[in-house]
Amino acid sequence: MRVTVLAGGVGGARFVRGLRAALEGSDAEITVVVNTGDDLWLSGVRLQPDIDSILYALAGVNDTERGWGRAGETERVSDELRAWDAGWPWFTLGDLDLGTHLARTGWLRDGLTYTQIAERLGSRWPIGVRLLPMTDSEVDTQVVVEDGTRLHFQEWWTRHRATVLARAFENPGIESAVPAPGVVEAITGADVVVLAPSNPVVSIGPILAVPGVREAIADAARVVGISPIIGGKVVRGMADACLTAIGVETSADAVARHYGRRADGGVLDTWLLAEEDADLAPVLIDEGWDVRVRPLWMSDVERAATLARAAITS
Amino acid sequence: MRVTVLAGGVGGARFVRGLRAALEGSDAEITVVVNTGDDLWLSGVRLQPDIDSILYALAGVNDTERGWGRAGETERVSDELRAWDAGWPWFTLGDLDLGTHLARTGWLRDGLTYTQIAERLGSRWPIGVRLLPMTDSEVDTQVVVEDGTRLHFQEWWTRHRATVLARAFENPGIESAVPAPGVVEAITGADVVVLAPSNPVVSIGPILAVPGVREAIADAARVVGISPIIGGKVVRGMADACLTAIGVETSADAVARHYGRRADGGVLDTWLLAEEDADLAPVLIDEGWDVRVRPLWMSDVERAATLARAAITS
Repeated sequence: MRVTVLAGGVGGARFVRGLRAALEGSDAEITVVVNTGDDLWLSGVRLQPDIDSILYALAGVNDTERGWGRAGETERVSDELRAWDAGWPWFTLGDLDLGTHLARTGWLRDGLTYTQIAERLGSRWPIGVRLLPMTDSEVDTQVVVEDGTRLHFQEWWTRHRATVLARAFENPGIESAVPAPGVVEAITGADVVVLAPSNPVVSIGPILAVPGVREAIADAARVVGISPIIGGKVVRGMADACLTAIGVETSADAVARHYGRRADGGVLDTWLLAEEDADLAPVLIDEGWDVRVRPLWMSDVERAATLARAAITS
Repeated sequence: MRVTVLAGGVGGARFVRGLRAALEGSDAEITVVVNTGDDLWLSGVRLQPDIDSILYALAGVNDTERGWGRAGETERVSDELRAWDAGWPWFTLGDLDLGTHLARTGWLRDGLTYTQIAERLGSRWPIGVRLLPMTDSEVDTQVVVEDGTRLHFQEWWTRHRATVLARAFENPGIESAVPAPGVVEAITGADVVVLAPSNPVVSIGPILAVPGVREAIADAARVVGISPIIGGKVVRGMADACLTAIGVETSADAVARHYGRRADGGVLDTWLLAEEDADLAPVLIDEGWDVRVRPLWMSDVERAATLARAAITS
């Protein structure tokens, strides 16, 4: 069995860890196409927050207390950067994490692509899945805020905690980007493609915006989406601010309609709705949606595995 | 009084610290033109070993035990880079030191020149001298070894401990480099220019090789050099391997002749010779040299200050 997941960072990482557990012992192949819109240059170093979140979670070296970054992290270099009044002082840069960024930046300088770098990163630990960046091009997400100013997504998200009203999210240059090698094949060749319960706007959105990805999804065998909204609320992060900016209500049915049914030119065949949102199912079913009501909380690997099983067998 | 010093890393740092002490309380202006041939890109980050050695020593944050780097240093990131099999595993990259490199790399990405960066670096602590890179161009020193292979100087120096026979030292692109803004003026406008007791081949050599520097020295008021060889031996480092490569004997008189007298088209007016090498003085004096025999060991700031006083008043 071949499963391909489109994913952002933390929510994507939890889902993929559950999926790996669900398929353990089988000869299933898992490919994760990861959002790279969150990527950024910081003090000349290239960061890829979503790639790293998934990598660390699968390697079991992530900080489960904080919910992001490496376990046992320190911030020696970051403190020093602050003393230099350099970089982005509001961006936490862990020392162990920085090792990853420096390795990546060195490889970039050596001429490796992001795809080749993801392969190298994924080979350090037996993570059991193939990590693919959505594209080898740099198409960082920018946020156009109230007064028309553009901020890098990370600045808006981390510095302003998404409290500055966003008018739009853009990925400059994405119209000329192409999917990274293997992405189209991973989507069209999979038995099932899963849209992880990641941020629909700034995690799944950029992946779908890479020219060629929607076309590949149109050719996919089956596409299942998992609602990132449970009981009318975002599970984590500030996806509601992103949804509001693009005129989508923070509700599980509105997100489903935002993605759309493949039959109508959208990207989904099936939508997994939380038990807390079961009351939204009838209307969606009336509209022709294949909806499954399932427990969506991934509070531990076992629950995430149960959800993953539901997704790939639905 | 205006004093301009041409200097490499550790030896240069000791001398400049002594010079600062010697001139403390006066309104003297000290400018240090620093070799940047040792600079390197490492995992996408720009290192400037000589600039940083002088900076840390003047700021009093240097590790006096090891003789290089920051005091209280750790290597969290470096260990991680090794785990990634990335970068140059034989190059020690301290965490505090890395903060400097990242700040610099970020500023480079922001479009600052090395001159502007040196000014920012020098403004964190009250170092009391002006630091100027020899040039804003990147003219890293390469070593051509026995079999014709080219190595970055740092690889030859740090990894091979200068034990691989060098045939030549080159600074690709230096013919089109220009002195950093202020360098020519600092040399021509100084009451005395001092060649620090740094490596004549790979520290002072690249500075003199920047087109325009020798011309500026020809116009200088007075130029004094300090022998980096004491009792026929290098004080520290592996300058003997460098001297041998360019066909210069490791002796205080051979280095003097390598620099040459200004009267003969060289760069020196006066040569400070160690007491241990006093027997070399008569022949040099016969050849027309202005030679002063002085204690050259800079084992503490007081001795370095005494040497600096001797240099600027000779």
